[in-house]
Amino acid sequence: MNVADILRTKSARVATVRMNETVAVAAKLLRAENTSALVVKDVCRTEGNVVVGMFTERDVVRAMAEHGPKGADLKISSLISVQKLISCSQSDTVEQVSQVMTDNHIRHLPVLEDGRLVGIISIRDLVVAHENAASVQPAIA
Amino acid sequence: MNVADILRTKSARVATVRMNETVAVAAKLLRAENTSALVVKDVCRTEGNVVVGMFTERDVVRAMAEHGPKGADLKISSLISVQKLISCSQSDTVEQVSQVMTDNHIRHLPVLEDGRLVGIISIRDLVVAHENAASVQPAIA
Repeated sequence: MNVADILRTKSARVATVRMNETVAVAAKLLRAENTSALVVKDVCRTEGNVVVGMFTERDVVRAMAEHGPKGADLKISSLISVQKLISCSQSDTVEQVSQVMTDNHIRHLPVLEDGRLVGIISIRDLVVAHENAASVQPAIA
Repeated sequence: MNVADILRTKSARVATVRMNETVAVAAKLLRAENTSALVVKDVCRTEGNVVVGMFTERDVVRAMAEHGPKGADLKISSLISVQKLISCSQSDTVEQVSQVMTDNHIRHLPVLEDGRLVGIISIRDLVVAHENAASVQPAIA
């Protein structure tokens, strides 16, 4: 099973946020979208929809832990590392993606093809994939 | 493989917080413990260490999304539902725990035995368990 198989079972919708928005705006988006991660895009229209990183629940916690109430007013761009975009492709296997998430201690990976965002894979997607596989195969002993 | 097998591979340490603490304090604890969920305990010593719920990164997001900067000062007790403690036991299988997490859209389960907290299981633990199982069994096709 690979990333493309998982994406076919999911909504094509990917929640995004611009990197010049605040943590408070991102928190509202995360809540409104009922998701735990937003794909962060740049703010330069001429460059198109370039994915520059992920903004997750953990980043909201970090903002509040380090800055208290003022964390809400921080810019997303000040919290994400644009140097370290970790992503996957549709042809990656569940095992490969699982390993990347474990190694980097992350729960979400943007799926890119030729630099274009085509979806997002979460650690929950991997667990559901295992559940589905287990329902047609012997369960793990 | 069951919950007890997973707990044997983990640190016995479980990060906890009292329900009369604030969201800001919980955010600092989450960050300091490098974890995404805290077990919430009651504040009444005479009743011992009663687990009343979980406080996660998602709750921090909710506090900020709904209350902005003031969310940092909210009491944890005002955000968790003490009516709905979802937990598991050491004898539950990986498949059972996985299903509970999927059905309830949660990523952490306190492990209780006779009402006593003996550990915590995360969705990441399930993925790692599948990785380990895959390394000794044929990978999922």
